[in-house]
Amino acid sequence: MSKIGEFHFVSESYLLDFRGRVTIPMMGNYLLHASSTHAEQRGFGFNDMKKQGCAWVLSRMVIEMISHPTMLQPFTITTWVEEINKFFTSRCFAIRNEAGEAIGYCRTLWAAIDLETRKPTDLSLLLNNLGSFIVDEPCPIEKPGKIQAAERDTPGIPYKVCYSDLDVNGHFNSIKYMEHLLNMFDIEMFRHKEVSRFEIAYMAEGKYGMELSLHKKEITPDRYITSICDEAGKAICRAEITWK
Amino acid sequence: MSKIGEFHFVSESYLLDFRGRVTIPMMGNYLLHASSTHAEQRGFGFNDMKKQGCAWVLSRMVIEMISHPTMLQPFTITTWVEEINKFFTSRCFAIRNEAGEAIGYCRTLWAAIDLETRKPTDLSLLLNNLGSFIVDEPCPIEKPGKIQAAERDTPGIPYKVCYSDLDVNGHFNSIKYMEHLLNMFDIEMFRHKEVSRFEIAYMAEGKYGMELSLHKKEITPDRYITSICDEAGKAICRAEITWK
Repeated sequence: MSKIGEFHFVSESYLLDFRGRVTIPMMGNYLLHASSTHAEQRGFGFNDMKKQGCAWVLSRMVIEMISHPTMLQPFTITTWVEEINKFFTSRCFAIRNEAGEAIGYCRTLWAAIDLETRKPTDLSLLLNNLGSFIVDEPCPIEKPGKIQAAERDTPGIPYKVCYSDLDVNGHFNSIKYMEHLLNMFDIEMFRHKEVSRFEIAYMAEGKYGMELSLHKKEITPDRYITSICDEAGKAICRAEITWK
Repeated sequence: MSKIGEFHFVSESYLLDFRGRVTIPMMGNYLLHASSTHAEQRGFGFNDMKKQGCAWVLSRMVIEMISHPTMLQPFTITTWVEEINKFFTSRCFAIRNEAGEAIGYCRTLWAAIDLETRKPTDLSLLLNNLGSFIVDEPCPIEKPGKIQAAERDTPGIPYKVCYSDLDVNGHFNSIKYMEHLLNMFDIEMFRHKEVSRFEIAYMAEGKYGMELSLHKKEITPDRYITSICDEAGKAICRAEITWK
């Protein structure tokens, strides 16, 4: 089996935004779908991990888009394992249009947690075949970095986690974090600009009924730091969103 | 071309709820997708209507589910035109599992509006071929009826229409109405019960930034009336939700 996985998608009209484009959160869904299918096909997917008493946890995700697929436009996502160290593995993605031109890239960082202790697991002990899938393939976007705390000096917008926010594991869906963060921007931003880079750091699990607060702050023109905090004011995720 | 359209779907894990089931709103997306594709293939779709200066408007939708597709379960939606009168046409749907057993049904009622005047158009003048697709196929669920006004004697939960609520036409996505109405129910309802019938009446367009209020009232055990009202307290949609 090839080290690089290739997955084909066609945008469905009911999953597009008001401009008829695939949204960043929906692209996030497609990327995670490609990621989990690639892992499953190669013996280190959700079910393989479960057998070892572990689960993958998404720690970082950064998506950079050059252009956005529109109505019924087919696109292809390729994904591969870039690196593995003791507690983290990085996975990259390229998104290409029908002509084979890159229209976006993505980088993700994953940890594995022990389902009993909820603590990180040593990946080298756990998955002795994961390393064999590492490929030296270019992913020409900046790696995720440290994101400043938007919550430090901005008032929060209250938000309560509800039924439609939950994923199949009953946690706050990682893609829904993105959706709620983008909803803080006025519609005029979407009319005149486009998100060119969306970088998110997941720091703690969101749960049903949690009373969260959403924060946003412009740090340089068109560059925003955002965060979602729990009842105690502790950030459960931070994101940096750049528009062009 | 056959009068009945048949469309195949496989539930994607990222579109399932915390119980691993296709949600009612997501099923609504699949049904509307089947509907628009059926119409397009037969010459009375979105683009055909646009050429005549008109657009389809969904007026009523009722979904009854016997069971719900779960992770990676393939299902088939068949859809057909049931009736046409001057201002409305009814379209039915059956949802079947891999064994061909019905797991749900749906009825919808559509009007066509003139894009200039925003007024209903006489369907008999507009689409002389629509009638040729009428089929006498059973759809064994009750037709949509009148829904009582939940807003009359319940306090509303405020909600402001945001970016992720908008459809490709820039209006409040008809499926998102369903999502917000279901989010009013406590998670325990979803844990122990299931929506068996979801009936919705669309009364006015929701737009970006509108300050809405959401209402819910139990009328008999496990039977609820709900509504979404605009700033003036006028209902823009009402729904009746039955659990089993």
